[in-house]
Formats: sequence, structure tokens, C-alpha cells
Amino acid sequence: MTSPENIPAKSNRLPEGKMPQLRVMPSPADANVYGDVFGGWIMSQVDIAGSLPATRRANGRVATIAVNSFLFKNPVFVGDLLSIYADIVKVGNTSITVYVEVYAERNRLQTEVVKVTEATLTYVATGPDRKPRQLPPLESLISHD
Amino acid sequence: MTSPENIPAKSNRLPEGKMPQLRVMPSPADANVYGDVFGGWIMSQVDIAGSLPATRRANGRVATIAVNSFLFKNPVFVGDLLSIYADIVKVGNTSITVYVEVYAERNRLQTEVVKVTEATLTYVATGPDRKPRQLPPLESLISHD
Amino acid sequence: MTSPENIPAKSNRLPEGKMPQLRVMPSPADANVYGDVFGGWIMSQVDIAGSLPATRRANGRVATIAVNSFLFKNPVFVGDLLSIYADIVKVGNTSITVYVEVYAERNRLQTEVVKVTEATLTYVATGPDRKPRQLPPLESLISHD
Amino acid sequence: MTSPENIPAKSNRLPEGKMPQLRVMPSPADANVYGDVFGGWIMSQVDIAGSLPATRRANGRVATIAVNSFLFKNPVFVGDLLSIYADIVKVGNTSITVYVEVYAERNRLQTEVVKVTEATLTYVATGPDRKPRQLPPLESLISHD
Amino acid sequence: MTSPENIPAKSNRLPEGKMPQLRVMPSPADANVYGDVFGGWIMSQVDIAGSLPATRRANGRVATIAVNSFLFKNPVFVGDLLSIYADIVKVGNTSITVYVEVYAERNRLQTEVVKVTEATLTYVATGPDRKPRQLPPLESLISHD
Amino acid sequence: MTSPENIPAKSNRLPEGKMPQLRVMPSPADANVYGDVFGGWIMSQVDIAGSLPATRRANGRVATIAVNSFLFKNPVFVGDLLSIYADIVKVGNTSITVYVEVYAERNRLQTEVVKVTEATLTYVATGPDRKPRQLPPLESLISHD
Repeated sequence: MTSPENIPAKSNRLPEGKMPQLRVMPSPADANVYGDVFGGWIMSQVDIAGSLPATRRANGRVATIAVNSFLFKNPVFVGDLLSIYADIVKVGNTSITVYVEVYAERNRLQTEVVKVTEATLTYVATGPDRKPRQLPPLESLISHD
Repeated sequence: MTSPENIPAKSNRLPEGKMPQLRVMPSPADANVYGDVFGGWIMSQVDIAGSLPATRRANGRVATIAVNSFLFKNPVFVGDLLSIYADIVKVGNTSITVYVEVYAERNRLQTEVVKVTEATLTYVATGPDRKPRQLPPLESLISHD
Repeated sequence: MTSPENIPAKSNRLPEGKMPQLRVMPSPADANVYGDVFGGWIMSQVDIAGSLPATRRANGRVATIAVNSFLFKNPVFVGDLLSIYADIVKVGNTSITVYVEVYAERNRLQTEVVKVTEATLTYVATGPDRKPRQLPPLESLISHD
Repeated sequence: MTSPENIPAKSNRLPEGKMPQLRVMPSPADANVYGDVFGGWIMSQVDIAGSLPATRRANGRVATIAVNSFLFKNPVFVGDLLSIYADIVKVGNTSITVYVEVYAERNRLQTEVVKVTEATLTYVATGPDRKPRQLPPLESLISHD
Repeated sequence: MTSPENIPAKSNRLPEGKMPQLRVMPSPADANVYGDVFGGWIMSQVDIAGSLPATRRANGRVATIAVNSFLFKNPVFVGDLLSIYADIVKVGNTSITVYVEVYAERNRLQTEVVKVTEATLTYVATGPDRKPRQLPPLESLISHD
Repeated sequence: MTSPENIPAKSNRLPEGKMPQLRVMPSPADANVYGDVFGGWIMSQVDIAGSLPATRRANGRVATIAVNSFLFKNPVFVGDLLSIYADIVKVGNTSITVYVEVYAERNRLQTEVVKVTEATLTYVATGPDRKPRQLPPLESLISHD
């Protein structure tokens, strides 16, 4: 199904050998009156992307408890393709801290890759009662690889 | 138009004498599979609420450049009525830092008021070219009161 | 957290000493092809705002049964900040009639406050079977103040 | 393309020989926490449906200026198929009054057709400046039939 | 309620004597950056419209299993009024194939009716376990007419 | 930023060495009354994903002209993480045919990867007048790698 006609995405400027947690395109409904994508929409996507490795590490449900930092380095425009990477950087008894980076490929032609946002968020593993829950031991998770 | 039939909102536990920047109700579409309102939706509302006093201080357009801190102290549920307060806490040459607090009145009956979120965000005044712009002097703004 | 840098909202033209039931900003997705906010979106917000004092008076769930009048006095634009006030004006055995007013602060700079809509809606208190339900006596509600 | 396999919609209880202006299905995102479709969503659809014959009569853009009456006779549920009819009932120099009826076919099997809403709304023809505009003479419109 | 003021929709170019399954107007939020309505939004509406006769024939829940063909013959614009017709063209033991046509009345003035899309989709009747379910005999369905 | 705490996504069952065009999570608002994600929502995402390599090959805007086939092999649920792959399989003078595959990682824990959808769509390169436009020669595109 792959042929010479498939133009490779210029992935050399995206982090190599890593799978983005999310890869999404904002739509016009996500943009403000000036044509820029809402900061709040970007925060949403970052929050979801960060929750993915946290959910896997917690082996279940997590809740966001803090945004430790969040930098909007460049604007995001309608039509940008966003690749959102998330890596766990710290693990406590019940909490997981995740570093999230957002790269934009401009105008769908990917002639330009720009880092638009970086953030650090903390999630907590929760039980059915919404209370914090002890994280499972790491061994119990990686055995099935 | 006001009569004894008007049950006063129990505003004693909301900050006194202050007008919320926004007062909104999340809808079911804003909640996750567990029935809790998305963290990302709350971030959006906080971002908009914080931009309001920043826009007035800048006497024009602003862009969010950083979330300095953001604490989710309590979950938000569908049906909560949220009052979002925002106060400017620091002003630079081009930037404005705003402290935002979110209170939830649970279950629309307002028998309980809970502080659910507090955050500090920094905005920058921008010109038509999306570049930072000098803030106008304070005097020029308050003269029309 | 309040400093001389906090520019007061020019609340002198909003109703004094009253808390808006809702305070919301329409987004571009709520506007028609001509840039005006949909009448239907405004009706939605008015319906929710009116239901808030009705829910408190009914001490539980209500359903809208009639819009008695609804005047669009001025257009609403994307970027306006809307303050929606609602007061109970009549109470029957099972029904509650609410008068709702909507004020727009134009262009987020609040140099102009315009009354854009006024409406009267009737709600009925409902039970779990969706049938009308007797309103609780007023005394039972205000005792906890 | 029509065969005995095509089960006819039980249209005998919908108004005969008339084309609905809109025919829509509310989605779960349009329903409240109790599973009933938002009154505000229904108002939106009624407003759009009523604007269609008004736009044709005005031969151009119209704006809603008043809801004269609006009765919610029966609840609407997610999964109902709504047929919305709209007829012009009065025409002034610049304004057009439209009577709108909404019928629900329950549970997509159409074993039951229920009139859920009726409303009367007034629209005004507007020019590019958003000001009222004289309606064109009726003759100028029907000549092309 | 019908008067000479009611301008008849120019239904001569829409299929005669047939009721559209859906009749909808795309909103600006359904359009791309070029002002054209998203192909995906049109696919959604076609999928829902096709499911309606399939649901009636199955006398219960159905799931889409295939899009056999789908032609976008003309673009759809914000403000078009879409009439979507759907007819069952083939019935198997558990599956129902539906032919769907979409007509656009341009610019709400209906001076032009354009066929914009035609598609054939296959649905399967499903039980509570999401597994295919035998279709009921045709006689059991048409008896109540 | 990568540590032993980062649990690798079990990518062994996703196509190896390929970047998904999109990676998205459906939200509750995208699901029907039975809890399954709308077929129409999935079609939307497939349409966007397929348009990405087509846009790069066309070095500019494209429009969807046909869905040649579309199979829903397994249901998609709220909470699934979808990876959508798209490869160009045929190129004409003005048209580009793309094969799209959708994989779901169930319940965010990725213990199961299921192929849920495969589809083939044809796009046409368009000019500012929405008319088909000659594709640029392949050499002109890959030179900047």
C-alpha cells in the first residue's frame, strides 16, 4: 500500500523515534475572532495527551490536579497539524507528573515545524470514590511487553 | 420586578462585593465518561475569564503566554454553577498577570459553595502584527469613571 | 490580590447591587454568516439563566413550559460580554414566571453597555415522573439564610 | 429506487401535503442531565425554521425581533425525529410573522407522532447596515414559479 | 394559517411527492477554512438519514457496516438548505442497503436546487449484544398502516 | 525526559515504523445513545486524515470527491484512542486516491489493539476557483527532503 507516490512527512524536525500521544487538527470552531486557535482549546488537548501515559502508568483512571507550568511559545493557527508528545518525568505514591510538548506543522504542507507549547502537569491516580489511590508497582505493568 | 418570591442566591460564601468575570454552567457535553467536567473545559473558562481584566488594562487585544500555576482543588460536576473571579496581580511593560478563582455552587440549589480551582496566568498585550505592545499608562484608562 | 492595577468594570450601567445569573461570552461558533450571534444561542442562555432562580424556588428540577415574550432589542456580536439577570415575577401552585434581562458590554472594553434582550418565561416544578409538582412553601426555603 | 421494502413513514399524523422547513434529530449533546432535550436547543431550531419562509418572503436577510409566544407542550427526547413546519401568518412593511409547529416521531420507529411545540415569531427584513428594510412587493417574488 | 403570503418552496426540482428523511442547514462551525462545508459533516448527515428507514425496517437498532459508494458532486456552502432523501434498495437476512441523495437549495432563496451528494450505505440490524440480528418479516411491519 | 517510568505504548500491534496521520480520542459528545461512537464522526476523522497526504502531494488545497469503500469492522467506544494511517495508493492528473486504516486502543490501557475501519477515498487538487487543478510533478516535491 506504500508507493513512491507517498510523500514522507518531514518528520526530521519532529522528535525522532517517538510516537505522539495525540495528533490533531484544530477546526475553525476552535479559533478566536482573530483567527488564532484558543489557548483554552490547546490546554484541553495538552491535558488529554498528558493523561494518556499517566493512565497507563496508573493502570486506570487519573484526575488532573495541577498545571505546574504552561508556556505558549508560538501561536497556533487553524489548519496546523499538531503532534503532542507526553513523557512521565516523576512518579510519587499516588501522583504522576508528565512533561508535554506540542509541535505544529504549519499550513498542512509541513514545510515548517514549530514548537508551540510546552507544559508540565500532575495527575493523581483515583479510585471509584474519586479519592487518590496507590500506584501499582512498575513490575506489574511492564511484564506483558 | 423584585418581590419576596425572589430567593436570594446564598452569596455569603462567594467573595463579597465583587462581580465574577464569568458565571457559567458546564453542560453534559463538557463532561468525561465518569461524569466529571473536563479539566480542559475548566482551563478554557479560566483562560477567558482571566483575559477580561487583562484586555481592559491593555485597552485592546491580549494573548495568553503562560499558565504559572493551576490547582484543581475539587472536581466540577455537570449542573454546577461556576463563578469565576479574576484580579490583576502584576503589570509589566507589556505583560499582565492575573489571579483567577473558580467557585462552584453545587446542584443548582446553592446549598454548598466550593472553591474548585485557582490559577495564575500571564497575558501579553499584542498589536495587529501579534507582537507584544507597550501597555497604555493607567491614567489614560481610569479617567472615564 | 486587588491592587490599583485592577481596572473596575464600568458596572454603573449594569443593574446595581445585583448578581447576574449568568455572565458569558459567545464564541465565533455561536455566530451566523453575517457575524451576529444566533438568536437561538441567546434564547438558550436566557432559558438557562431563567431556570436558575426557578430551580431554587422549586427546590428541585423545573421544565420550561412557555416563553411569554421575548424581545431582541439590539444585536449581539462575537466578543460581547453578556450579563444575564433573572427575577421571579409570579408564582403559582406549580409554576414560576421569571423576567430575564440581557446586557451586553461591547468589545470587551466595556465602554458601552447595551440592553440587548428582555424576556419572560414560565417554568413548572416537576417530579421524577416529569409531571408538575406542588411548589414547597416559601418559609421552608429561606430559613437557612 | 423505491421498492416494497421501503416502509412508508406514518405521515398520516404529520400535516398532510406540506413540506417541513427542517427535519432534524437532536443528539445526546443537546440533552440535559435528565435525558430531555434542552428547551434552548429546540428554540434554536424553531428560530432557524421560522427564518426560512421569512427569508424567502423578504428575498434576503432577516433578523429575529420577537418571540410572541412559545409553548412547550410535550418533552423532546434524544432519538426523536423532529419535523418543523413554518407558515407566514402576517406581513407588515418590514416585518414578517411566522407560526411554527414542531412534531416529534418518537424512538425513530414512528409509531407515535406528538406535537411538542408551537410558537409565533416575528422577523424583520434587514439591509447590509442591519437596519429594517422595506419588503419587496409579493408580485416580484412569485413571478418565477 | 396558510395565506397568499406563504411563498411556496420551489419544490419542483426536489423529488416530487417524497418526504426528505432530514432537512438541515449547516452552520459556520461545520465549514472549513475555505468556507465550504466539511465533507465529514455531510457524511454524518447522510449516515443519520440513511439509518432512519433502516431503523424502521429493522424495527429497532441498526449499525452502519459499510459505505459502498459516496459521490460529492457539488460543494455545499454555509447557508444552503439540505434535503436528504433515503430509500431502501436491498434487504438481506440481517442487512439493509439504503440509497441516499442530498439536494441543496442555495442561499436560502431556493432559486437554485443542486444535487450535491449521492451515496449507498449498508446497515445491519443489531441486538442488545451489538451482534447482527435477523430482520423481522415485512408483514409484521406494514400491518399497522 | 524519558525514564524507566515511561511505559511504552504497546505499538507492536500498530503498524511498525509509520506515523499515524491523526491520533485522536472521541469524546462523549461524539457517541450515540447506545454509547457507541457515531459512524459519522469516524467518517469525518477518516476524511481529514486522508486529506493530509493528499494535500502534501497536491502541494495545496484538495477536495474530497468520492468515498470508494468504507468498512466499519468493529465498533468504536468513547475512551478509545484512535490511530489513523493514510497512504496514497493511486495518482491521476488531478486526483489522488488514499487508503486509510483506523486502529483503536481500547480503554486507554492499550491491552488490546483492534482495527476498526478501513476506507479508500479520492481527493482532487483544486485551485482558488474550486476547479480541478493539475498535480505538480513529483520531483518538485521531494527535492526538499
